[in-house]
Amino acid sequence: MDKNIVLLPGDGIGPEIIDAATEVLQVVGKKFGHTFIFDSQTIGGSAIDLYGTPLPDQTVTACNQADAVLLGAVGGPKWDQNPSHLRPERGLLGIRKTLDLYANLRPVKGFKKLLSASPLKAEIIKDSDLLIVRELTGGLYFGTPSERYDNGNSVVDTLRYTRNEMERIIDKAFQSAQLRKKKLTSVDKANVLESSKLWREIVEEKKVAYPDVAVEHVLVDAAAMKLITNPSQFDVIVTENMFGDILSDEASVLTGSLGMLPSASLAENGVGLYEPAHGSAPDIAGLGIANPIAMLLSVAMMLRYSFSFEQEAAVIEEAIEQCIDNGYHTADLHVENGIKVNTKEMTEAIIAAI
Amino acid sequence: MDKNIVLLPGDGIGPEIIDAATEVLQVVGKKFGHTFIFDSQTIGGSAIDLYGTPLPDQTVTACNQADAVLLGAVGGPKWDQNPSHLRPERGLLGIRKTLDLYANLRPVKGFKKLLSASPLKAEIIKDSDLLIVRELTGGLYFGTPSERYDNGNSVVDTLRYTRNEMERIIDKAFQSAQLRKKKLTSVDKANVLESSKLWREIVEEKKVAYPDVAVEHVLVDAAAMKLITNPSQFDVIVTENMFGDILSDEASVLTGSLGMLPSASLAENGVGLYEPAHGSAPDIAGLGIANPIAMLLSVAMMLRYSFSFEQEAAVIEEAIEQCIDNGYHTADLHVENGIKVNTKEMTEAIIAAI
Ligand SMILES: CC(C)[C@H](C(=O)O)[C@@H](O)C(=O)O
Ligand SMILES: CC(C)[C@H](C(=O)O)[C@@H](O)C(=O)O
Repeated sequence: MDKNIVLLPGDGIGPEIIDAATEVLQVVGKKFGHTFIFDSQTIGGSAIDLYGTPLPDQTVTACNQADAVLLGAVGGPKWDQNPSHLRPERGLLGIRKTLDLYANLRPVKGFKKLLSASPLKAEIIKDSDLLIVRELTGGLYFGTPSERYDNGNSVVDTLRYTRNEMERIIDKAFQSAQLRKKKLTSVDKANVLESSKLWREIVEEKKVAYPDVAVEHVLVDAAAMKLITNPSQFDVIVTENMFGDILSDEASVLTGSLGMLPSASLAENGVGLYEPAHGSAPDIAGLGIANPIAMLLSVAMMLRYSFSFEQEAAVIEEAIEQCIDNGYHTADLHVENGIKVNTKEMTEAIIAAI
Repeated sequence: MDKNIVLLPGDGIGPEIIDAATEVLQVVGKKFGHTFIFDSQTIGGSAIDLYGTPLPDQTVTACNQADAVLLGAVGGPKWDQNPSHLRPERGLLGIRKTLDLYANLRPVKGFKKLLSASPLKAEIIKDSDLLIVRELTGGLYFGTPSERYDNGNSVVDTLRYTRNEMERIIDKAFQSAQLRKKKLTSVDKANVLESSKLWREIVEEKKVAYPDVAVEHVLVDAAAMKLITNPSQFDVIVTENMFGDILSDEASVLTGSLGMLPSASLAENGVGLYEPAHGSAPDIAGLGIANPIAMLLSVAMMLRYSFSFEQEAAVIEEAIEQCIDNGYHTADLHVENGIKVNTKEMTEAIIAAI
């Protein structure tokens, strides 16, 4: 089957790991009889440099026509002093909003072989395997007004949600929990925020439709603690945009392998966007030593969620697991008696295992 | 010197640990020739039960006339289903706002003897000693509108700050850093929020007045990671209200002794309020087994910040350290070959050491 995939390499190490993604996809395509057609477009800092905007129209048009989108990473010190509308992050926020990618799924699961790199004690991180479902297109990051007033002496940002925006992400989370360990932790600040109160009400309303899922409510400050003291208590965590931003980054370092965590951002019936959970790592950009695994696991998520190619996804995941078990690792990780490789070598090892 | 102290025992284990506080203060008073005059007032759930409001007028009046306020804890399942204005937390938010307690200082430092209780590996938590300075009376927790609209199908909360509110907390943080390791980490989300942009500008403006303090800016999501991967890189962290809520709770579990962390909430020229960083622990309320140490360290902070009784504060801190070194611990902690004691016994051991 032909699949049109838009590539958004972006900035920093983005292009290097996107290269790894296309190489692996070509091999998987050959093996399973699919043709993946790639269309590379710009976003973020590199789009600013080329077109004067972090999200060019042709990028949006291409994404809208694609079957799926793969994103490398955006951002870097070069653009840090730019005015708001000319910052790389605007491109990312813009594509999320334009494609209505409301559901950000971030699985956090360590590889056994690498758990010793965790900052947490072995007995604490041991069995953890969780999925953060973050609302991605509402809340404080998109609400208006977001501006100065009173001659610049006051400032306001606005956290807005519609009931429908909350309902769809909460449904998504319940459905995700049904496919996993059937436990849902809803995170809010219902003891203070009106938006959190509505959120909690909706979770309570929805849960009758998912009787097989056990639900609990945890305040965001308590959740930030529990992720550290007992991460294995969680299965699926669902929360609004900003809480999800903070908690998913917090969770991403627990296993000691941030360079290995994928993410999917999904629309209701449209295209999905897949990107590694890590950033653009400008300090190592261009050196060819970036860890491609988070990107390749994101490719696996794309195959599974956007194309329902379950077997193809599993083949990539197993190949990665095998390479890690064999001791292969990139420079971001320390592995006792491991084989340190660069991006290209890691990609080739994974392809060999496919 | 006579000092008028308002006691707000509140809910759960609050009354038990406030008892420990007054006992210790009486001993310290006798030793150093001070008279501490206590006036007990209600707040939170117990105030709701008695007076139908979480923050009775007489409590506010008493606090306004006091030299300092000691708070136990508020909240509990009994009041969890109450409407917003009848929730215990409203009392806490109300007293913070009424007394203009804009600066919340939360030191996070482990006791050597107890570091093995940390969820983090010993080499990661080893040298960490940080202070979170949280803005406490602005931002999302106080902004209006905070309400439903559109027939209840939409909801809004509002994050507002004035320049002056940001300036005073940032000044406070710089001054705190000058008294410590002279490093300030300012946490914001300046790549997305307008309020964070103003915050970052003000930090940049202010830093010229504190040339001895090294300043860095960290995004809130990155800060949530760094607290876990390398907590010892921090000295003073300053941030707005909600980020501070999440990060200070996250930080509080790093050392493995949440029951040992005090906090101070300070006004510009008014009264200070001191409370343990932990909550009301309704599950063990009334059993007499609560850990009084966070409360007693909060008492030490009161003596230091509100009364400038440096020696008196140090005597309490040293007595606590000594008891811990001798193996005393309450039921919330596990200490190899330790001496497990209840609230009363721990308090007496500390008094004996004073
Ligand atoms: C780059 C930034 C706008 C973005 C966010 O906060 O959403 C990033 O931190 C993420 O989590 O994907
Ligand atoms: C009880 C609640 C309103 C409060 C807050 O969020 O400020 C608490 O979590 C705290 O950190 O002191």
